[in-house]
Amino acid sequence: MKKSKIMSERVIFPKGEKIAGDGIANNHFIGNVWLQMLVTDDSTFHCPIGNVTFEPGARNGWHTHPGGQILLVTGGKGYYQEADRKAQVIREGDIIKILPHVKHWHGAAPDSYFSHIAIMPNSGKGDATWFGAVTDEEYRDLL
Amino acid sequence: MKKSKIMSERVIFPKGEKIAGDGIANNHFIGNVWLQMLVTDDSTFHCPIGNVTFEPGARNGWHTHPGGQILLVTGGKGYYQEADRKAQVIREGDIIKILPHVKHWHGAAPDSYFSHIAIMPNSGKGDATWFGAVTDEEYRDLL
Repeated sequence: MKKSKIMSERVIFPKGEKIAGDGIANNHFIGNVWLQMLVTDDSTFHCPIGNVTFEPGARNGWHTHPGGQILLVTGGKGYYQEADRKAQVIREGDIIKILPHVKHWHGAAPDSYFSHIAIMPNSGKGDATWFGAVTDEEYRDLL
Repeated sequence: MKKSKIMSERVIFPKGEKIAGDGIANNHFIGNVWLQMLVTDDSTFHCPIGNVTFEPGARNGWHTHPGGQILLVTGGKGYYQEADRKAQVIREGDIIKILPHVKHWHGAAPDSYFSHIAIMPNSGKGDATWFGAVTDEEYRDLL
């Protein structure tokens, strides 16, 4: 196993603070997820950027971004799924462009941590809207 | 020396194509610089993103971005300087927010390669404007 694949290691940018506890903390995340904001939202750049790390099996819920979102996958193996489409496996080096208002979720595969840099351009268009969790049953059925 | 510091190695994202030859290729870059676009410009995200790698001593010229620019430093050691300010040393893990219309340049230190992800939000506001090279004499006087 390459050293950079170890769950606890930082991948260039700090891992940040844990934002969700084990189990269903809310409708936004399931499992342990760490967030380090690299750029906070402001009215000049309109482009907050976060470094997000998911433990194996952790994921966010279905949501949309009015200004779209870009994911730069920096480590591990994860899933990305848009509504009414099959989930796709994504890995270190992958780039995901999520169009405005497209309902989607992303998170770790069951057997790997997963980290990405999440870029939210056009943040002046508003905050994400959340639609509920990807349940354990739904997640299991992806495999 | 950590393996990730080796000049020729990719740092998560591909190194891409060489965009400037040795010497003063134009007023935009001096030295060898490689670019891999991760996200091309479009009218939805307005947020092109490039992975840029500079050989030791390579740098871009003085320029401005009408929509601002954010640099995520992913490897090596480099310099960032704004007009009428001292150059600062920047390293892997540093984040640089460049306000719209602020004249600046960035590039590698003389003794290290340097790589960053360059994010250009609000690209609908227009392209960069270039003001000429950071000459060898200017660059040497920074040290």
